Amino acid sequence: MGTTQLQTVPESKYWHLRTVLAEALDSDFAVGEVLPNERELAARFGVARATLRQALEQLELEGRLQRRRGVGTTVAPPRVGVAVSTPRDEWPGADEEAWQPLDHGTAAAPAAVARLLETGEGEEVHTVRRIRITNGQSVAAELIYVPSSSVPELSAIEAPSGPARARAVLRELQRLALDAPERAVELGSARAEDAKELDRLPGAPVLVVTTRYVVAGRTAAVSVATYRADTCRLTFGDSGDLEISEAPEETRQAS
Amino acid sequence: MGTTQLQTVPESKYWHLRTVLAEALDSDFAVGEVLPNERELAARFGVARATLRQALEQLELEGRLQRRRGVGTTVAPPRVGVAVSTPRDEWPGADEEAWQPLDHGTAAAPAAVARLLETGEGEEVHTVRRIRITNGQSVAAELIYVPSSSVPELSAIEAPSGPARARAVLRELQRLALDAPERAVELGSARAEDAKELDRLPGAPVLVVTTRYVVAGRTAAVSVATYRADTCRLTFGDSGDLEISEAPEETRQAS
Repeated sequence: MGTTQLQTVPESKYWHLRTVLAEALDSDFAVGEVLPNERELAARFGVARATLRQALEQLELEGRLQRRRGVGTTVAPPRVGVAVSTPRDEWPGADEEAWQPLDHGTAAAPAAVARLLETGEGEEVHTVRRIRITNGQSVAAELIYVPSSSVPELSAIEAPSGPARARAVLRELQRLALDAPERAVELGSARAEDAKELDRLPGAPVLVVTTRYVVAGRTAAVSVATYRADTCRLTFGDSGDLEISEAPEETRQAS
Repeated sequence: MGTTQLQTVPESKYWHLRTVLAEALDSDFAVGEVLPNERELAARFGVARATLRQALEQLELEGRLQRRRGVGTTVAPPRVGVAVSTPRDEWPGADEEAWQPLDHGTAAAPAAVARLLETGEGEEVHTVRRIRITNGQSVAAELIYVPSSSVPELSAIEAPSGPARARAVLRELQRLALDAPERAVELGSARAEDAKELDRLPGAPVLVVTTRYVVAGRTAAVSVATYRADTCRLTFGDSGDLEISEAPEETRQAS
């Protein structure tokens, strides 16, 4: 494999400042504290305003800083642990306190999802859109693809649209005996629709969790969930109470 | 919650271009194909060179493009699925074909790791450094923290240093009956040391996997693994053969 490094290295200066600032946040500032303004900070660290701004933006993307209109730049609280997978895995909808169904629709699944679902090209499937609320904040937006064949008993009359219809689809799914779901996590960037629901800008880094719900060896549904990468740490295999309660400092510095 | 959006929106233009380019990569280019040069691309899409460069850098960070000296910018292959957790979870070292122990050391664990390990502040623990190789490429760098109390039988004479010592520590760990490990995944940025091993620039986005190895209700070891976010998709709960063989298009576009 050849090197995949960028040919130019524009990061070095702001990256160094970012690291210095991250250490200062740990040692000199409390959560919620307002940072001095950019002019003061640039003077204190002996850097150009542009460099400072780049470093602050990086720390904001990482969830270390928050910028609020009229308040300024504040030190963000630690990331929140969000259970993605527990030993007792369940169908979506079984955990109604965490997730809110928003609406229901039908659409041709994207090609890769259609492949997993083994539906025909262009075949319409049910789509259920949900958001996940933790501590009063939207932390994830999810789209679940459900072929009609997975919910054959679904009545068209009962709850024809909206969140009620979304709930009806999930309720039907819950009648199927679920094998252990398979998940994949990767880095993504928020699409416009997700960004709006997550109170982020389009392009903000997100963690994309793709879940394949398997019933009797076949994929009965696929969900694609987009988690805020700045505020969330995804947890797997624990009880759901967050045992890994804080990122190790090492990680925190690295993040 | 107040809004945490940036006050300035510098992304919009390059972000739009990034989306247009990502679609063009899907439809007009094959994996490995060399892109036209920046001047041509800027002209084709009617944008300034600076905007184009920003969009290309974004796509490179996301793993959609690769830039190699002397070759130019090429379309990157799809991300590789890397099994982080399978139904049969094991101690590190049981999967020697995937991971290579690099060295062994002793160090005071970072405060958050020390809390998990319930070791005293400043108490030295064993550290084992490993890299994970997939398809001949380094995809992850890991640091495992092991308190002496977890490996009481470890002899100081046998294999006093280096990879052999690292293996000896892991071998001792494997004698303990492991409960299901608990994991957390979050976004991070590569520290200098990890970046070098992963052939990335410091600050490149990585997925940080923190694993708590629990034995009889207590944390016997903690590992912090840093995966390349541009080339890896982490998989959980499957057999290890990657069943989710390709990111859904939706995700791919979002990523």
